[in-house]
Amino acid sequence: MDIKEQARQIKIDSSSMANTSFSTRNLALQNIALALEEHKDAIIKANLMDIENAKENQVPEPVLKRLKFDEGKLADVIAGIKDLIGLSDPLFQRQLDRSLDEGLKLYRETCPIGVIGVIFEARPDALVQISALCIKSGNCAILKGGSEALRSNKVLFDIIFQAAVSSGLPEGCLLQIEAREDIHQLLSCYESVDLLIPRGSNEFVQYIMNHTRIPVMGHAEGICHIYVDASYDLQKALPIIVDAKTQYVAACNTVETLLIHEKIAEDFLPKLKEILSKHHVTIKGSKRVQEIIDCEIASEEDFKTEYSDYIVTVHLVDSLEEAILHINRYGSHHTDCIISEDTEHMEQFMQYVDSAGVYSNCSTRFADGFRYGFGAEVGISTGKLHARGPVGLEGLVTYKYKLFGNGHKVDDYATGKKQFHFVDYQIEKE
Amino acid sequence: MDIKEQARQIKIDSSSMANTSFSTRNLALQNIALALEEHKDAIIKANLMDIENAKENQVPEPVLKRLKFDEGKLADVIAGIKDLIGLSDPLFQRQLDRSLDEGLKLYRETCPIGVIGVIFEARPDALVQISALCIKSGNCAILKGGSEALRSNKVLFDIIFQAAVSSGLPEGCLLQIEAREDIHQLLSCYESVDLLIPRGSNEFVQYIMNHTRIPVMGHAEGICHIYVDASYDLQKALPIIVDAKTQYVAACNTVETLLIHEKIAEDFLPKLKEILSKHHVTIKGSKRVQEIIDCEIASEEDFKTEYSDYIVTVHLVDSLEEAILHINRYGSHHTDCIISEDTEHMEQFMQYVDSAGVYSNCSTRFADGFRYGFGAEVGISTGKLHARGPVGLEGLVTYKYKLFGNGHKVDDYATGKKQFHFVDYQIEKE
Repeated sequence: MDIKEQARQIKIDSSSMANTSFSTRNLALQNIALALEEHKDAIIKANLMDIENAKENQVPEPVLKRLKFDEGKLADVIAGIKDLIGLSDPLFQRQLDRSLDEGLKLYRETCPIGVIGVIFEARPDALVQISALCIKSGNCAILKGGSEALRSNKVLFDIIFQAAVSSGLPEGCLLQIEAREDIHQLLSCYESVDLLIPRGSNEFVQYIMNHTRIPVMGHAEGICHIYVDASYDLQKALPIIVDAKTQYVAACNTVETLLIHEKIAEDFLPKLKEILSKHHVTIKGSKRVQEIIDCEIASEEDFKTEYSDYIVTVHLVDSLEEAILHINRYGSHHTDCIISEDTEHMEQFMQYVDSAGVYSNCSTRFADGFRYGFGAEVGISTGKLHARGPVGLEGLVTYKYKLFGNGHKVDDYATGKKQFHFVDYQIEKE
Repeated sequence: MDIKEQARQIKIDSSSMANTSFSTRNLALQNIALALEEHKDAIIKANLMDIENAKENQVPEPVLKRLKFDEGKLADVIAGIKDLIGLSDPLFQRQLDRSLDEGLKLYRETCPIGVIGVIFEARPDALVQISALCIKSGNCAILKGGSEALRSNKVLFDIIFQAAVSSGLPEGCLLQIEAREDIHQLLSCYESVDLLIPRGSNEFVQYIMNHTRIPVMGHAEGICHIYVDASYDLQKALPIIVDAKTQYVAACNTVETLLIHEKIAEDFLPKLKEILSKHHVTIKGSKRVQEIIDCEIASEEDFKTEYSDYIVTVHLVDSLEEAILHINRYGSHHTDCIISEDTEHMEQFMQYVDSAGVYSNCSTRFADGFRYGFGAEVGISTGKLHARGPVGLEGLVTYKYKLFGNGHKVDDYATGKKQFHFVDYQIEKE
């Protein structure tokens, strides 16, 4: 069966999946956690083969690090599944309970999005997390993981799929696709797939966005800023900048541009340079920065660049307003931070900067579903529609309107024979 | 100045617009209502010229009807603005208040989407409603109305713009574009425009979706169904079907396909035919329907067709399950209704049909922002992401995450030196 036909079948199953009970979905998660524990040895063995193979193919060190799936990482994902079981049901939640007129009742209730395609990097833990999030939220998932993790993913997927189906979920709950060519087929399934979540490099996400009619949720790029205000605390500024740049240099929430208030530049820049040098970070400075410290030259192009490397752009601004304008113009609306001791400036920055995350006095690296306490995330969205920032369970559901009538016609209201009488009822939270 | 440059300017103004107070936005709405009342004569005069011109150009009757903007319609839109003033602030609403660890506070707060482009049909009332909704939700709007309403729209826009700016809103709050060619420029402004809402024919909406990188919210088409179950009340069924088909034949929430349980077909179809004939509705029946009543022939293509005309497809099904499968396969996920006296079937239909609106025993024509009590709507979405069904104020806002720290670094948590301690606080509703 080709992907298109399989996707069509999954689409049909998605309405059963949408109506599985909370307890069935949690039971599936419980059985998945147990099965992962039980098949620990097989998982780790498969992963060691992937790693060996990757080393032979001279895969770079950061990829190897993500590919590795040892006992510790397995314990982490199992703990993650247990956290997820503890979260309340994102489905069947009433968001509106309104009487429109006598005998005409309108409800709005949450339901799953339907069929979600996720294309992710070579990280076995991502496969487990994404499957678990989709099951908890009643979505069917079509999964394509990075090819370096082929063996690990195959073993993990089989364990998860068996446990899910034997717990009462429909066969179409999960599908794994393995060949790179299958991605192209997946992109054409706009009648069966409701949402695509691509993860990976900026070019890859852009490519997906430009080659499908399926809605895509993802971040195009992560050009994050830290603005150091005129009134700032050096003891906070330097460690935050080091953390935001070097804690994980390839992450999307890593800082790429530092905006420094010109008033503090003479004093601050040499100290900044000293500490960044210690952490092997190269500074690219705009013109006025070069007059104060010795550094590489930054052009306007650098303002729009996600380095994903030990490089940072440094630029001076005259005011808070200029910093905000710069960020809204050149940033990617991901996560931006102000370092300031001035409460009013912090407020203004956080109101006027148009980004998914607006921070004060902390590292941009906090932009992450786990760190926000969402249990897990399927990705980070820099789009403003549907979900913004780290996307957890809530971003995987939509809603439908249910209208119960008793023979009600619109014409009676259009001709004035009847009038609407809107009454809202309190929604009882479980 | 070209549209691209104007859009860039509006993008800059959008962050002031996002931070206008609730009272400023309501004051603007109040002044707009007053100004419309005050300039009544000029508005009606311009509209009469548009109508005269449209008649000369032999514009079809339904378009003329929508184009007409008389004292009654003006009173309606003014009443609509006053309703909107009464609604609570969609902005600055806290949706999450969480402590991540000591001194590290995370908030999620609603904010406007930013700059919204709306392309709408030749209906002067639409211009007023859309402007008012965008102002209430703190969005800047770029408006392009149907060309038949050119004079009416010009007068209305000038009145609204003057009143808005003199109430303290930024100059960029509203922009009208008039030339059809300008739409193409608008479609290319993906760096300045956050959302496009096209209204109009299916082909037009599809065209927009295929020619822009800006996210589009809209309905592709409206293929709505009514399923008449084996246990049904004839006294409800016939009037509902007549209303759903004929009350406004060109609307997206008009029914296109009737699915009839085969058990009742012999009895029901002749009665259906009689009443639909009286209302000049042509029946296209699938094979088994043709065996019972005299009618035109329906092919599979008809199942996917939005007639926007006095034509309806009639098809027999063996069961509720078949009806649900048919709707999920051929429908447009807009609004679908079951006519049944069986509570369990109603429940099942409403759970398993994958549409924005799932109805029982009432006309599909109720799918509308006014009728849902939203005050007004900018359109109806058949997409599942962000907003689904009629889109009112809530669909025009997004949110941002604000994180307040005190020098917090991720490395402390990654190395285990610190642990997260998540505590959620109750959100106070205004």
